[in-house]
Amino acid sequence: MKVKIGKKILSANEQYAEQNRKYFAERKILCLNMISSPGSGKTSILTRTINELKDRLKIGVIEGDIQTDYDAQRIEATGADVVQINTEGACHLSAAQVSGALEKLSASKLEVIIIENVGNLVCPSAFELGENAKTAVLSVAEGDDKPAKYPALFAKSKALLINKIDLLSLGAAIDFDIEKVKSDVHRLNKTIEIFNVSAKTGEGFDRWCDWLFEQAKKQA
Amino acid sequence: MKVKIGKKILSANEQYAEQNRKYFAERKILCLNMISSPGSGKTSILTRTINELKDRLKIGVIEGDIQTDYDAQRIEATGADVVQINTEGACHLSAAQVSGALEKLSASKLEVIIIENVGNLVCPSAFELGENAKTAVLSVAEGDDKPAKYPALFAKSKALLINKIDLLSLGAAIDFDIEKVKSDVHRLNKTIEIFNVSAKTGEGFDRWCDWLFEQAKKQA
Repeated sequence: MKVKIGKKILSANEQYAEQNRKYFAERKILCLNMISSPGSGKTSILTRTINELKDRLKIGVIEGDIQTDYDAQRIEATGADVVQINTEGACHLSAAQVSGALEKLSASKLEVIIIENVGNLVCPSAFELGENAKTAVLSVAEGDDKPAKYPALFAKSKALLINKIDLLSLGAAIDFDIEKVKSDVHRLNKTIEIFNVSAKTGEGFDRWCDWLFEQAKKQA
Repeated sequence: MKVKIGKKILSANEQYAEQNRKYFAERKILCLNMISSPGSGKTSILTRTINELKDRLKIGVIEGDIQTDYDAQRIEATGADVVQINTEGACHLSAAQVSGALEKLSASKLEVIIIENVGNLVCPSAFELGENAKTAVLSVAEGDDKPAKYPALFAKSKALLINKIDLLSLGAAIDFDIEKVKSDVHRLNKTIEIFNVSAKTGEGFDRWCDWLFEQAKKQA
């Protein structure tokens, strides 16, 4: 009985996701669904990515948060188009919410739309939003056991950003074995691209931004 | 329609929670439901708490994880009783799962049972497990905007551990304003006890362990 209910909800979501998928395809827009724990640095990654690609790529953002428009304000400060969705308690964005947000975004001018999902390593990965690819973020402060303990997101993502690598230079303060994470993630997902970055210092952003640019060009 | 389905599931959960609540009351056991994002340091807090209170308090643990028994192994190494629940994808523990775990725990010998919920700052706070109190954990690496952005857990918890405060001594590497967090949390919850701790260095554990001991004695 529970399984049936689950299926019905997923399939209503899937209809909106399909509609969003068509919307992106018709406009040749690349859409990424960015997912992580709270506080991994998704918004900081976005503001730096937008700034570094300003002259090469028109990026818009859909911000998903339970409460507040703090993240949308930070994106707005870069000059990029942004729409905030407040889920008012819900633990993930739905495709219907994204569909509503798309009406408010000046999508005709955009080449890339990045959806920043609600901070949650579990639920968002189960709900398609119509994106071309999921992008996972994991901060080194969260510990290197996370891919093994929360495998679904890492198995489904096309890219993984390992963020806050500047903290690793602080020595023993952070225990995080990047090679262990890469090997655990590759066991779940052979084709995933992994980027070591610091949204604070900018380390690793060249490679990530080049990859994003290439993905957008493939779509166009 | 969706609301009705939600209510039915909550009320089945509530029946098990009530049963667990009686179980703890009859045995004069204090039960805490520990909730946080993935990687805030719940398991490290538990192992240090068990070790520091070894001679004063008999603590058992129920470990909730989507996959793996990594956390249970870490608890087992302290010598404490532990039962692992794998939710196989589910984003929070249910009261029925806790009820099943209690049958496997040598509860007659215990004064405190701490349930480590699935790492998720959102969903676990909506499901009562029969606990006496929710205990939130927030690591300074997650950022000081989290209570405002994810208010439910902070509004419902009896205690908050702000963990990894050793990282603050690293200066500008971590931007985290403890006073801002305290003021945001107190706006949601006037009576919550807040502890600044480092599970790595042991800083702040005296006060937290004394508080936990006091709570257990009130129950007995």
